[in-house]
Amino acid sequence: MTIKELFPLVLTDIALFTVEERQLKVLLVQRKDAPAAGQWALPGGILKPDIDRSLEDTATRVLRSKTGVAVPHLEQVATFSGPDRDPRGWSVSALYYALLPRDRIGAVTGDKTEAIAWCDAHKPGHRCAFDHALLLRTAVIRLQDKVARSALPLHLLASQFTLTDLQQACEAILGRELDKSVFRRRIKDDPALIPLAGEFLRGPQRPAQLYQARAGFTF
Amino acid sequence: MTIKELFPLVLTDIALFTVEERQLKVLLVQRKDAPAAGQWALPGGILKPDIDRSLEDTATRVLRSKTGVAVPHLEQVATFSGPDRDPRGWSVSALYYALLPRDRIGAVTGDKTEAIAWCDAHKPGHRCAFDHALLLRTAVIRLQDKVARSALPLHLLASQFTLTDLQQACEAILGRELDKSVFRRRIKDDPALIPLAGEFLRGPQRPAQLYQARAGFTF
Repeated sequence: MTIKELFPLVLTDIALFTVEERQLKVLLVQRKDAPAAGQWALPGGILKPDIDRSLEDTATRVLRSKTGVAVPHLEQVATFSGPDRDPRGWSVSALYYALLPRDRIGAVTGDKTEAIAWCDAHKPGHRCAFDHALLLRTAVIRLQDKVARSALPLHLLASQFTLTDLQQACEAILGRELDKSVFRRRIKDDPALIPLAGEFLRGPQRPAQLYQARAGFTF
Repeated sequence: MTIKELFPLVLTDIALFTVEERQLKVLLVQRKDAPAAGQWALPGGILKPDIDRSLEDTATRVLRSKTGVAVPHLEQVATFSGPDRDPRGWSVSALYYALLPRDRIGAVTGDKTEAIAWCDAHKPGHRCAFDHALLLRTAVIRLQDKVARSALPLHLLASQFTLTDLQQACEAILGRELDKSVFRRRIKDDPALIPLAGEFLRGPQRPAQLYQARAGFTF
């Protein structure tokens, strides 16, 4: 047997989400090299046992090298495996998601060689390479499940935000509108939300209280 | 670099649960071979790319060889990784849980060489090898989370069961008693529960309606 038949390929793939124009978006990368050169995929890369201390380290390193950003929080979603999902051989891929605040979208540059695109996470428009359509769907379902259980996706928001921003981020994840008064009641006493004394967003409407996320908050 | 430094070890570990005497129990195996010979651990084994079609296949195969049982349903919990968790080198382990009906406990035999024990899943009594105490805790939390969200652990029950059996299984997972009337109201219209016409458990108390799980039900 060859090395390839004895040892599976171990990778991580990352679904990096943001909310832009009230839409949940995911970052796709157009692959430069084989396999699947020219096709769009989630950013991903191979575990390097000599430098990574965990699969989460791999995900952080890969995301930084492929997008130029460091994200504060990665969460493991599930691990996919099998002999046919990658033409290089038997492969294991740990899928992570990460949330990027909308005011940091500009920091995502891609590397020198691969094109990147922010796509509608519910309907990306590009055909995904490998089984990445399944991976993306699995990550979206995880986010939806968390929001349905009252977790607040504050990592998607700018450092100061209104409750309307928060509601729109939840709606973007769920793919449907929420009743404003039900939503406000639900989040009213959430300890993750800290109102900023005397800080209001002023515009054509009534001034809106600004909030920030409690330090150390995780989604 | 050696092969060991280039390729991580890929394994699965399985938390096999049952409920016995109103207690959530997990199967531990006393390891015969190094590493950690003589210590207790979750049953686990190495992926064989030439025969396994997925990590779930690995888990099924390992569980059958180490316990003699085939379980109907395995669920992936999380994947653990790092250079120090196994003395053989950088390792990746996909953790699964499986639920064994109480009337099949007798079918679990262990293999010829390793001792097995059903231990209190909340407090196993044996010191676990590797990071298996963490893996076990993670699997228990997953079960608790599901029960708290109204999933019914019917795979733990015999093929015919009473609502009292079901409540006791939920209590064993949660580690606390539940109010009977609240519990009955919550499960009243659950489509997974099928009352067996004219089948009652008779004993010193009032006869209790027997139920079976809807076919294809998953926890």
